[in-house]
Amino acid sequence: MALIVQKFGGSSVGDASKIKHVAKRVIETQNAGNQVVVVVSAMGDTTDELIDLAQSVAPDPYASGREMDMLLTAGERISMALLAIAINAQGGKSQSFTGSQAGIITSNKHGDARIAEVTPDRIQEALHAGNIAIVAGFQGFNKETRDITTLGRGGSDTTAVALAAALDADLCEIYSDVDGVYTADPRVIPSAHKLEKIDIESMLELAAAGAKILHIRAVEYARRHGVDLRVRSTFSKDPGTIVYSSNGEHMEEPIVSGVATDKGQAKITIIGIPDEPGKAAEVFRVVAEADSNIDMIVQNNPTGVDVTDRVADISFTLPLGDLGRVAGALEGAKATLGFRELEQDADIGKLSVVGAGMRTHSGVSATLFKALADAGINIEMISTSEIRISVVTSSKQLDDAARAVHKAFGLDSDTEATVYAGTGR
Amino acid sequence: MALIVQKFGGSSVGDASKIKHVAKRVIETQNAGNQVVVVVSAMGDTTDELIDLAQSVAPDPYASGREMDMLLTAGERISMALLAIAINAQGGKSQSFTGSQAGIITSNKHGDARIAEVTPDRIQEALHAGNIAIVAGFQGFNKETRDITTLGRGGSDTTAVALAAALDADLCEIYSDVDGVYTADPRVIPSAHKLEKIDIESMLELAAAGAKILHIRAVEYARRHGVDLRVRSTFSKDPGTIVYSSNGEHMEEPIVSGVATDKGQAKITIIGIPDEPGKAAEVFRVVAEADSNIDMIVQNNPTGVDVTDRVADISFTLPLGDLGRVAGALEGAKATLGFRELEQDADIGKLSVVGAGMRTHSGVSATLFKALADAGINIEMISTSEIRISVVTSSKQLDDAARAVHKAFGLDSDTEATVYAGTGR
Repeated sequence: MALIVQKFGGSSVGDASKIKHVAKRVIETQNAGNQVVVVVSAMGDTTDELIDLAQSVAPDPYASGREMDMLLTAGERISMALLAIAINAQGGKSQSFTGSQAGIITSNKHGDARIAEVTPDRIQEALHAGNIAIVAGFQGFNKETRDITTLGRGGSDTTAVALAAALDADLCEIYSDVDGVYTADPRVIPSAHKLEKIDIESMLELAAAGAKILHIRAVEYARRHGVDLRVRSTFSKDPGTIVYSSNGEHMEEPIVSGVATDKGQAKITIIGIPDEPGKAAEVFRVVAEADSNIDMIVQNNPTGVDVTDRVADISFTLPLGDLGRVAGALEGAKATLGFRELEQDADIGKLSVVGAGMRTHSGVSATLFKALADAGINIEMISTSEIRISVVTSSKQLDDAARAVHKAFGLDSDTEATVYAGTGR
Repeated sequence: MALIVQKFGGSSVGDASKIKHVAKRVIETQNAGNQVVVVVSAMGDTTDELIDLAQSVAPDPYASGREMDMLLTAGERISMALLAIAINAQGGKSQSFTGSQAGIITSNKHGDARIAEVTPDRIQEALHAGNIAIVAGFQGFNKETRDITTLGRGGSDTTAVALAAALDADLCEIYSDVDGVYTADPRVIPSAHKLEKIDIESMLELAAAGAKILHIRAVEYARRHGVDLRVRSTFSKDPGTIVYSSNGEHMEEPIVSGVATDKGQAKITIIGIPDEPGKAAEVFRVVAEADSNIDMIVQNNPTGVDVTDRVADISFTLPLGDLGRVAGALEGAKATLGFRELEQDADIGKLSVVGAGMRTHSGVSATLFKALADAGINIEMISTSEIRISVVTSSKQLDDAARAVHKAFGLDSDTEATVYAGTGR
């Protein structure tokens, strides 16, 4: 008997008929001989509606972090109870559990708590009694303060993965309205195709590079705890994409699994900053104090007549939403930092090529840069990891760039076979 | 420093502006030098909306009693968190607590749990830290199963009274859109006036006799634990009505505090039932098995030629909603019970006159019956307690009867002084 954790997002439980559909699906999984734990998000727009309500009673409701968590957790409470009611009405046997009841123990950072420990005794009891266990995603509790917490962005996916790890589940299925992981965003590249499987390292790089299908936090948790994931659609029987953490198969890995694009980034360039030891550190301390996570950094070769008046330029990318705040902080420190000028660019895009096979295959960057050059794309910045190459382009050129690269690596669906060099499939 | 428990019903927290108003009021109570615990119901129609949702995913959601309780408790979770957020935004300091966190321990009868114990440690901690403690009404948890429960009808009033008792509060204020306890329903009798105070025994009789202002269950809890109540309006500064449990004042009590009417009753008459020992017991066993609580019972003098074929008539009143079910059960047992005929009457009304002073004053029933006779009201049944006289009339005559009686006991507002014989007010 396998133990499967299934996570259904807000759009999967958006109304009564969808909840009944999910109930049917969950019962089928149990009837196929599995123990089933279901993690649910709040229905559709419930969370946004609750936030609206909070903003209508207070100008800055997040100042009451503990109370906002209490408020927002009502959303999953509603969806989980409704799903359990629907399952029971369809002849199944289920019980719902809050994050606290499910043993999701977290740090005490309200609105963005980290999972510290999972003690799923009540879930195990429910499973042993033959129940389908429904668990509220996105929430937990802090042991010291005995207060309810929420996990922030990606919280429900993370709840599912954390429960799968703690229960030693055979598989963690993440359901949404997308039927798997694609080689690129199909809205940008219609020839993108769905991957049958992908290794967790590549999934992590894709998530970090802007692919929205799985939250990086959940992928990271799965990687660390060796949880296998399956990404699939609530509304089709398609098997979706397996994201494997376990390396039992020793299969050869595709050189390039996919191409991710991200328009949610911006660039700041600091021009004419003295080329002195510790200047870059000063710059990034100011950025960190403005509470932003920077991504790529480039420093050009310093120019100047002699050593004492040599100046450099530093460029870095950061989330678009942080641009104004960080630029303001840097301008405020202009005198101290001693730079000449600061440029902001909100119109950039990041393109990343990811594949575990890069570790053992050379020539990937050559193929990438040739494809971009042939398509007339100007590259502004470059960064690499062991299994990823990212470039920054203008946001206008990003989609063209992605299409050219996708094709160059043989990812277009009519050339699918060439991607999985050596896998024998 | 006094400790005050304030309960606000669903209409008092029905929207954002009302929640902000309640927040202001609660802060004022604290600023006046009190410790404040606030019990809230779900906002306006939230509970009905949640029930609708449940009925849209299952034909009989109440079959999942545990899950319905999980679902419905989301309503208070929302209102309590919003109130805490509003208080904090207005410069107050508050924390919200679920029934479970507030230590409301109950039986495990989902949907209608009884409070077994209250252990308000966290509330006391919050108060000592200078916080206003906001508590979800209507809910608790069962210690053995660790499941969330709801308290059923009158649950939020009962939560407030139970917390007041456990915290040894000085006063429990019940806020609604009504500004106190009246001598009669002002919609029926415009000359009814608000009572400044009333003893808890009389309040209990009024609630039992159909007065809607306080739920009988909360009044009974207050009586048993000696909790003083104040009934007042959320939307005015009127001091409302004190319902005193403590008899410290040794004040003289009004002969008649108020007149209550109840159109939610029906009458069943069983005609021609053998006048044998145990027949009445058989009848009421059938009624009890049909899960109905009867109120008044009258058995007439048996008639018949000789002892062996003497027959009697038995009439009793019961909640209108139970009429069909109970009549059906009795008809089903007709052969066993051996009665001749069963009459149902859905058009009755019950009028009750309540006053603690009846214990020491005679002549109340004489005044009552003369007033009814003068007004041409036909009395169908009569029942009495130590401090109450109730009569059943036709529902058509009920309002006229109430007006006549209200006037006869000097309760009309222009003759108020005569009511409180001996109180010196």
